[in-house]
Amino acid sequence: MHHRPVNWMDNPNAERVKRVAQLAGRSAVRNRRKQFLAEGPQSATEAIRAHLGLLELSELAAEFWPAGHTVAEVYYTEQLTASNPEAAQLIEDLSTDVFVAKTSEAVLQAMSDAVVHQNIIAVVHLPVVQAGPSTQDKLVGALVRIQDPGNAGTIIRTADAAGADCVIATPQTVDIYNPKTVRSTAGSLFHLPVYIGVDLEGYTHDFQGQIFAADGYGDVRLDQATAAFLAQPTVWLFGNEARGLNAQELTYADHRVAVPLYGLAESLNVSTAATICLYSSAMAQRGGST
Amino acid sequence: MHHRPVNWMDNPNAERVKRVAQLAGRSAVRNRRKQFLAEGPQSATEAIRAHLGLLELSELAAEFWPAGHTVAEVYYTEQLTASNPEAAQLIEDLSTDVFVAKTSEAVLQAMSDAVVHQNIIAVVHLPVVQAGPSTQDKLVGALVRIQDPGNAGTIIRTADAAGADCVIATPQTVDIYNPKTVRSTAGSLFHLPVYIGVDLEGYTHDFQGQIFAADGYGDVRLDQATAAFLAQPTVWLFGNEARGLNAQELTYADHRVAVPLYGLAESLNVSTAATICLYSSAMAQRGGST
Repeated sequence: MHHRPVNWMDNPNAERVKRVAQLAGRSAVRNRRKQFLAEGPQSATEAIRAHLGLLELSELAAEFWPAGHTVAEVYYTEQLTASNPEAAQLIEDLSTDVFVAKTSEAVLQAMSDAVVHQNIIAVVHLPVVQAGPSTQDKLVGALVRIQDPGNAGTIIRTADAAGADCVIATPQTVDIYNPKTVRSTAGSLFHLPVYIGVDLEGYTHDFQGQIFAADGYGDVRLDQATAAFLAQPTVWLFGNEARGLNAQELTYADHRVAVPLYGLAESLNVSTAATICLYSSAMAQRGGST
Repeated sequence: MHHRPVNWMDNPNAERVKRVAQLAGRSAVRNRRKQFLAEGPQSATEAIRAHLGLLELSELAAEFWPAGHTVAEVYYTEQLTASNPEAAQLIEDLSTDVFVAKTSEAVLQAMSDAVVHQNIIAVVHLPVVQAGPSTQDKLVGALVRIQDPGNAGTIIRTADAAGADCVIATPQTVDIYNPKTVRSTAGSLFHLPVYIGVDLEGYTHDFQGQIFAADGYGDVRLDQATAAFLAQPTVWLFGNEARGLNAQELTYADHRVAVPLYGLAESLNVSTAATICLYSSAMAQRGGST
């Protein structure tokens, strides 16, 4: 017996389904079509909130994720209403400028990069931003040839939590818009500007503040830095997982700062080190002992 | 043509290979055989270093990983010598009390829990420890119903780096000896005592210091705590990923301490929060502004 699906919402092999799935692949496809995927409730709902103008974005972040021009398409399953009623409500609030469709489980899985889909996928416009990062920010995290999507995403999430003004990424860093990185940001990608392909030499030269290289062999120990020192406007450079920052990149830094290792661990994962560095600066800048 | 492998080192279906692979499965198997797996160079070499007495372990950590009685078996591939000569040398240093064998790639993959094996697997004795955790430690991380192996392992790794005296885990926490947790500790499992099945109520009652609950809704903000406050002997409680600490567990804490969220992120991953909490205490206890 031959069964022919009546429409694409039930057909994992439909052309539309393949086109969405392609956005999970190579960056060339995303760049040509100027779109990427926000999969799962955390990422997709923050993209939709940006689209609906519900996030209190900074002026520069709003250039990345403009209200009314962030989300292109949303696909979801019946299951979403039960598993995440908040996300389902946000979809209801989208007007007709966004293509919204309920699909079968099989179709959403076929679109998804994840091993198990999470009932919602948004197709998001790649940001179109003319200007580069500000030179007058207070706190910035720089991804310098970070290769692991999970690390890049986790650092973006931590930078958001720490209230960083933006994240910058050098040309040889992993593609920020690949689905694994987007998922790892847990929605934070849509909360602050992430500038990609940044010329590190020019940016660090112009930045009006201090440049810290996170460096296990650094001569400044983070636990010996004063709050006043840490409270200055700061760009933190986080280097490649295997090789750290290279000699050239280290010359851009005013200080090489080491996270102290008190136990027997020989190193920290770069995203763990970044968490300690960014939060040390943020708490010195914004906190105050009572 | 029928090919019959001549010995188990080339035969992924050999009984010995299956027995090793079983240790990657359910905790019941590990508990019955009193063994677990340390896979990959980072974990396996630290187990071997403990066995060889090369680590500067605390007295209590040495009860977990006694020299001469930590590693039972080591399996590795030809490839290890090229990819990790240091690990290969450590294997050479093992005496005949450890069963050591070079295997084919297929055999090591069949033994491994990882998608791609990393050329070395050690079979390690489950620690036999009579006493529970000390009540006079300076810094302790507590895994309270943490479910994700990666989070548990990452917190153990950070606790090691922060110089914590030990990590404790409550009965409903993920099995510390499952291969994913062991891998995530990146060798730190063999650096400090990790007490499992700890009665949290009794332990926190007896502990001679302060108990902090890491709690996003806490009334003490980490960035408003003084260094003197953070420098006291402290146990940090880190709760379940989805539900945090429950009402009962919160009563064990002297203070509920929140990591401030300065940006738009609504929460932090528990291992990220634990990193900030443990390092804030460690730097207050051990650091000193210059």
